[in-house]
Amino acid sequence: MNTVLHKGRFLTLIKEGHWEYAERANATGAAIIVAVTDERTVVLVEQYRIPVHARTLEFPAGLIGDEPGQNGEAHADAARRELIEETGFDAERMDILTHGPACSGLGSEVVTLFRASGLRRVGNGGGVDKEDITVHEVPLDGVDAWLEAKGKDGVLVDPKVYAGLYFIQRAAT
Amino acid sequence: MNTVLHKGRFLTLIKEGHWEYAERANATGAAIIVAVTDERTVVLVEQYRIPVHARTLEFPAGLIGDEPGQNGEAHADAARRELIEETGFDAERMDILTHGPACSGLGSEVVTLFRASGLRRVGNGGGVDKEDITVHEVPLDGVDAWLEAKGKDGVLVDPKVYAGLYFIQRAAT
Repeated sequence: MNTVLHKGRFLTLIKEGHWEYAERANATGAAIIVAVTDERTVVLVEQYRIPVHARTLEFPAGLIGDEPGQNGEAHADAARRELIEETGFDAERMDILTHGPACSGLGSEVVTLFRASGLRRVGNGGGVDKEDITVHEVPLDGVDAWLEAKGKDGVLVDPKVYAGLYFIQRAAT
Repeated sequence: MNTVLHKGRFLTLIKEGHWEYAERANATGAAIIVAVTDERTVVLVEQYRIPVHARTLEFPAGLIGDEPGQNGEAHADAARRELIEETGFDAERMDILTHGPACSGLGSEVVTLFRASGLRRVGNGGGVDKEDITVHEVPLDGVDAWLEAKGKDGVLVDPKVYAGLYFIQRAAT
């Protein structure tokens, strides 16, 4: 038994059995892009996130099918478009690493992690509209210390960053 | 400007500026436990998750301060209690690995990853009340193939599992 408790513009609050969860109104999922340059740097984005009231460090990411006319677009195309918008990097290849729930207790969102390779700078990034994104290129050799220093500055590191680093490391061995 | 769009029993839907997000009513965060036994197996839990309508594989985890009288409890204590409830393993040590937002776009939840060590079986696990949890002890040597096979069976693997594996691997090198 599925009850809509509230239908917001972007999120719907749903009650199903004894469980409550949030569902996005206009997205079928989210793409997260683990991008590594030929110089062995990893591309991360820093931005202020209203829900957690803090700056966060994450991989570039975007909703899939969140803009009019983009429902059903291929996930890899969406991932590539988001990478360009947020970071200014285009990618020759987008390979799926894994997909799974971001917060299976409170939201229906399933994210797909892509590995982007063959990177080429085609713009400045920074996002569209109200997005205010700082792009970081962090040498893989030293990324742990860099993230730790950011954490000490009060920036919240999305745990999925470490998931991406796991796949990068696995591919390198 | 912060507006409550709907106050459910467990989740509140909030509008802040142009953003909508979900916030838990009775929890200050969540603890996620990366538990590795002395035999080099990692402890994972499988359960059906209503928000994603699928079985998922995750680390044992639980809300912090979600039961009456437990507000303000130490995070490590909460993590240890959840580990026992869900998996039947008690831990000698709980060390913080990282903390960060689980889904910074749609929820306020910040999760803390703990490394549990000195594991000792004290019960059967399986969760409390309505929880129906299957506990897996997966040899670290071979965990990638095991997760892949589970994925092919339609089980969704939480990306934070790979984050935990990153920390396990880093500690081992």
